[in-house]
Amino acid sequence: MPTVSKVLNGRSDVSRATRAKVERLLDAHGYRRRAQQSSRSPLIEIVFHELESVWAMELIRGVENVAKENRATVVLTESGTRHTPAPEWLPGVLQRRPLGVVLVFSTLPGDIKAQLRAAAIPFVVIDPAGDPDPDVPSVGSANWAGGLAATRHLTDLGHERVAIITGPGDMMCSLARLDGYRSAMAMAGLEADPRLMRFGDFHVQSGFEHAMDLLDGPDRPTAVFAGSDLQALGVLEAARVRGLRVPEDLSVVGYDDVPLAQWSSPPLTTVHQPLRHMAEEASRMLLRPDAPDTPGTAAQRIELATHLVVRQSTARFERA
Amino acid sequence: MPTVSKVLNGRSDVSRATRAKVERLLDAHGYRRRAQQSSRSPLIEIVFHELESVWAMELIRGVENVAKENRATVVLTESGTRHTPAPEWLPGVLQRRPLGVVLVFSTLPGDIKAQLRAAAIPFVVIDPAGDPDPDVPSVGSANWAGGLAATRHLTDLGHERVAIITGPGDMMCSLARLDGYRSAMAMAGLEADPRLMRFGDFHVQSGFEHAMDLLDGPDRPTAVFAGSDLQALGVLEAARVRGLRVPEDLSVVGYDDVPLAQWSSPPLTTVHQPLRHMAEEASRMLLRPDAPDTPGTAAQRIELATHLVVRQSTARFERA
Repeated sequence: MPTVSKVLNGRSDVSRATRAKVERLLDAHGYRRRAQQSSRSPLIEIVFHELESVWAMELIRGVENVAKENRATVVLTESGTRHTPAPEWLPGVLQRRPLGVVLVFSTLPGDIKAQLRAAAIPFVVIDPAGDPDPDVPSVGSANWAGGLAATRHLTDLGHERVAIITGPGDMMCSLARLDGYRSAMAMAGLEADPRLMRFGDFHVQSGFEHAMDLLDGPDRPTAVFAGSDLQALGVLEAARVRGLRVPEDLSVVGYDDVPLAQWSSPPLTTVHQPLRHMAEEASRMLLRPDAPDTPGTAAQRIELATHLVVRQSTARFERA
Repeated sequence: MPTVSKVLNGRSDVSRATRAKVERLLDAHGYRRRAQQSSRSPLIEIVFHELESVWAMELIRGVENVAKENRATVVLTESGTRHTPAPEWLPGVLQRRPLGVVLVFSTLPGDIKAQLRAAAIPFVVIDPAGDPDPDVPSVGSANWAGGLAATRHLTDLGHERVAIITGPGDMMCSLARLDGYRSAMAMAGLEADPRLMRFGDFHVQSGFEHAMDLLDGPDRPTAVFAGSDLQALGVLEAARVRGLRVPEDLSVVGYDDVPLAQWSSPPLTTVHQPLRHMAEEASRMLLRPDAPDTPGTAAQRIELATHLVVRQSTARFERA
């Protein structure tokens, strides 16, 4: 026993042969220093509720970029609802002990926050919904300014009948974009017609259905701010079905600037939401020595700028 | 020393107190049984060279579906070139010891195969390029049959001037789709005009450029088989620029059936390549007790069927 103790303590008064014998014995029985565990390849974890989303890939790429710079590996989990991860996710992450966790959710239940903090696993929320938990570090983008820029572009082109199809009424980002639209209309001295304001669900079909309705009738809008690129694709299809050319007969603006926005026919004018950059920012926050969710530091909120990208789906309004 | 040996061997001729003392000693010095490592949450790893691809998300979803069923977590790496992962990837995966690895590459260098096999980490290649290494288990899909189905659909609609924009000339899947096209043309008694056969790179821009050229002139094709959905989007945009309506003036067929195929205007008729299902199949192969790359078992090749999905971008050819 004293010999083993000496070996384990790294003392020099043990013969090389004895040390080797003890080490072989431990090794043969499957023992190794726990310290080695921490040398296993570091992980950065990203958790979504929905991989379907056209956003998801942009966010994954952002995390992967920062992981690569830091020789870390990305772990991906799909869990829970739009609002919060499922409770089953927690034991796994506590066992994996990643460098940090990027969560694509608006709110985190108290016990998830408490347990990640107790395990000293930093976390940051990417919150495209724009409704951050004040208690949690988060990265978002400027939704009101995006709604304003999209609508001003259309009023600057001379459009007066401008419709908006925003997102769900229970998401802050939808309301912020709608308020940006209202302000731009007011700044242009135009009245916002309530019949031209619609709540969608950010998917193609809801853009299509609202646009089919909006484009039916003599007093139709000459421009639609679609609130997401997917909704804008639905508006393009409704225009085709109604026999309207884009942009000659109808201008369309999207939101997000996901890759497919440049592949549509015509390519979409849209508001760039810097999703990849948001994920990079979130990942970098995790890896800083003063990671924002280290106990004792204040929660941070970063909001990145949005900007308009003008392509070919918008044109000057020409009175017929 | 004999005492320690008895404890490690779990023999009963050691007093409880002595056993406890040895275990405390090992524990205090940070030793634990390696066996405990295997209790950490299991990983399934997927490696790509390019996350940009519209394919990537479908493949990730397939792996994630199987991971979820097996309470495993997905690890994602972007590495290497279209053909093979970068050598830096290997030490990380050996350290992570996943349940298995899904590789989205055509070929694997010998040392990667040897080292994964030595570490008993099973691996399967998902090979949409259709050029499998005979030595490696792989999952692909029926490219020739897909090219045939796309072209027959067009000849059945009465089209005689049918163009093809296939993929790169150095990828087997491009050649197989081109041969399927040739066979369908021959079966319809039509001559395949070499001016109507083009090699693209599967991206939007190459579809656009080839279509701009194909649609310029009096003897233009009345239908284009675009070889990928992205190339088909480029063809739609070229038709818009040339003032042709799809499908009234030009029929277009894509390939892959990625989600954006149903969101284009008009929605694309396309060949469904079961990417998600291919990834699920590959992941399930890894988790079987007789995982195909367990030394001593023969390499397997699974090829899943493709099928045509008819939407709104194709119509009967009406002689003007």
